[in-house]
Amino acid sequence: MDAISVIRTKRDRGELTPEQIDWVIDAYTRGEVADEQMSALAMAILLNGMNRTEIARWTAAMIASGERMNFDSLSRPTTDKHSTGGVGDKITLPLAPLVAACGAAVPQLSGRGLGHTGGTLDKLESIPGWRAHLSNAEMLGVLDTTGAVICAAGDGLAPADKKLYALRDVTGTVEAIPLIASSIMSKKIAEGTGALVLDVKVGSGAFMKTIEDARELASTMVALGTDSGVRTVALLTDMATPLGLTAGNALEVRESVEVLAGGGPKDVIGLTLALAREMLDAAGLGDADPEKALADGSAMDVWRRMISAQGGDPDATLPVAREQHVVTAPSTGVLTRLDAYDIGVAAWRLGAGRARKEDPVQAGAGIELHAKPGDTVTAGQPLLTLHTDTPEKFDYALKALPSSYDIAPAGTDFTATPVVRERIA
Amino acid sequence: MDAISVIRTKRDRGELTPEQIDWVIDAYTRGEVADEQMSALAMAILLNGMNRTEIARWTAAMIASGERMNFDSLSRPTTDKHSTGGVGDKITLPLAPLVAACGAAVPQLSGRGLGHTGGTLDKLESIPGWRAHLSNAEMLGVLDTTGAVICAAGDGLAPADKKLYALRDVTGTVEAIPLIASSIMSKKIAEGTGALVLDVKVGSGAFMKTIEDARELASTMVALGTDSGVRTVALLTDMATPLGLTAGNALEVRESVEVLAGGGPKDVIGLTLALAREMLDAAGLGDADPEKALADGSAMDVWRRMISAQGGDPDATLPVAREQHVVTAPSTGVLTRLDAYDIGVAAWRLGAGRARKEDPVQAGAGIELHAKPGDTVTAGQPLLTLHTDTPEKFDYALKALPSSYDIAPAGTDFTATPVVRERIA
Repeated sequence: MDAISVIRTKRDRGELTPEQIDWVIDAYTRGEVADEQMSALAMAILLNGMNRTEIARWTAAMIASGERMNFDSLSRPTTDKHSTGGVGDKITLPLAPLVAACGAAVPQLSGRGLGHTGGTLDKLESIPGWRAHLSNAEMLGVLDTTGAVICAAGDGLAPADKKLYALRDVTGTVEAIPLIASSIMSKKIAEGTGALVLDVKVGSGAFMKTIEDARELASTMVALGTDSGVRTVALLTDMATPLGLTAGNALEVRESVEVLAGGGPKDVIGLTLALAREMLDAAGLGDADPEKALADGSAMDVWRRMISAQGGDPDATLPVAREQHVVTAPSTGVLTRLDAYDIGVAAWRLGAGRARKEDPVQAGAGIELHAKPGDTVTAGQPLLTLHTDTPEKFDYALKALPSSYDIAPAGTDFTATPVVRERIA
Repeated sequence: MDAISVIRTKRDRGELTPEQIDWVIDAYTRGEVADEQMSALAMAILLNGMNRTEIARWTAAMIASGERMNFDSLSRPTTDKHSTGGVGDKITLPLAPLVAACGAAVPQLSGRGLGHTGGTLDKLESIPGWRAHLSNAEMLGVLDTTGAVICAAGDGLAPADKKLYALRDVTGTVEAIPLIASSIMSKKIAEGTGALVLDVKVGSGAFMKTIEDARELASTMVALGTDSGVRTVALLTDMATPLGLTAGNALEVRESVEVLAGGGPKDVIGLTLALAREMLDAAGLGDADPEKALADGSAMDVWRRMISAQGGDPDATLPVAREQHVVTAPSTGVLTRLDAYDIGVAAWRLGAGRARKEDPVQAGAGIELHAKPGDTVTAGQPLLTLHTDTPEKFDYALKALPSSYDIAPAGTDFTATPVVRERIA
């Protein structure tokens, strides 16, 4: 077995054998297959595809590259959620404590933002004292005592995926459905959750721009999870417009706490409840009432215990950016479009995101939205507030925004896209 | 400008801009674009292609990565040949001195074998004392005094191509016509030859398996050369069967000397003369008579001076492999096929070739053919003699051979493919 013959097979549109896949993932993890060989293979996979059999084997090989976690010692059923990434997608923050408050255990291994999409760990790190990195024992401890834990995946989990993800990120090979599906599912299956709900984003602010691509990714992942004994469901949800009224780190934590306190924007509440119901259903807790857990403060209680257990102070004042800049509505009418990608890019340029893995992020940077599609706006009213600690970034951020919204004459009919577009089980 | 945006352009089937091409070649040469990024781009080019404009700019950028040689100080017109590589292709050895004997200067920068194809420098190094590596001044000196020089290309010539070629070799991205064409032509244009004849091999033993691919490669290269002011012609020549009766290093030197001495196999003589006529024509020496220069010993005189000038002893006994193994004809009849690829692989396995650039080759290893397609063979007569210093390799080499030839009943009609199949100018 050698790397060139594996690359050639896929380059020439052949099907990789199980032996080829097992060998290439193992040899890449050990460093015997070089980065430049794996990137050529990744590009061949991106352009020529993999079938379901190949994807399943590729995923299994990545799981086998590391350890598998085990939650059998817990008294509660485990259930997890994964979002493919969007703008203003803070749903994990209210969702994990909410589902825990309803009786499930939520082991939420999360990631950081890259490019225009935000990352759950970056958001939570804006809470003074909060730690993302836990040992496996610490993680199990937090999960056992509070019912939920949100933390970074340990280095032992699917190390092949970690290495491959970093490589894809610098070689233009991120956007391959077989590689996205196997990357997500290898981590989630290795993590050992019993149930999994996938939030597959569709639209300008998502990696999947079309409903067809989102369907293909979702059904690939549902099949991978189901075949591995994880009860898996996917919701295709809208990412043409940002979720909620904030995009940024501390800004999104504040909005999440509002939701846990019984307030917050309708779309965030709606998606949080929809995902909570799916997670509870998949965990065999279909009788639980997440709406009640949100209303009676029990979800907020879990949030406070969870944040404290990881060193964070739930009562601390969140960081605020040093400078603000307001963008006003140029005309009066109905806001019919507010583009998620443009808002994501602008927030990223303000300092909320990172260009490279090792870059720091600003806790306070980001964008507040003062209107959402369907809202009536008046000429001169604030439309967006940009936040940053580095005001020299305003110009560059504003360059992302001129065609980011449409305002139609007052009285124009407008029907909003529902947040949840499809369900795949 | 960044590597990922260049990769994405080609990945998404776009046309690379001149600025993107100049930047990526320069940044790769300087190490700013990493190997894993260039290999992803090479795979995208292999699968999605480049148009003529892109290929021309890519070639120019590779030339600009290093120095250009200049032969203006010579009193004779320069003319060069390049073969895309085959099995038993020793033509450069008799050809360079022959063309020099007819009045041209032949600056033949050559390479080493890789995989199943032989390399001119490996062959000549089987002559005791002969040196492949000359300084630019030494090279000009040999060329000026003897009319021909065969040596390794200096490190200053198209360094981007050297780096990219080594990368393609380990990433399954060798077989891309735009990359093959630009690799060959960047070196030949930077070398500064006034005229160039391309010997584009077609058939099992060549990189181009079909006449269509060979035509595309040839016409791409002829256009690149012509646009750069090099008078360029291509012959498409047969590589379904090995050239001559030997494949190996010292074995091929011996056969080349036979040709220079007025003997040798008909196909080797025929192709040598055909290429000599094209090289002389392109150099404006159409009146020269290569047949006479071969017959009257003047080509042999140049050979002896050329070998001596590079430290070689033209009278030295050539190395002979320690062990031989004879393969006999299993039946009586007409040999209708002798496969170049299989013979090349077997010779390589015997030690004539190398798997990696840094491997040594055996001077004496290789294969002698006792019959060529069209010849009548008798059951039990020697068909092939295998040579190696390491007899434990016989078994592995023999495994390449069971379906390498066909013998038809005696009297079967057989029409040989002509060696020169097409001419593209």
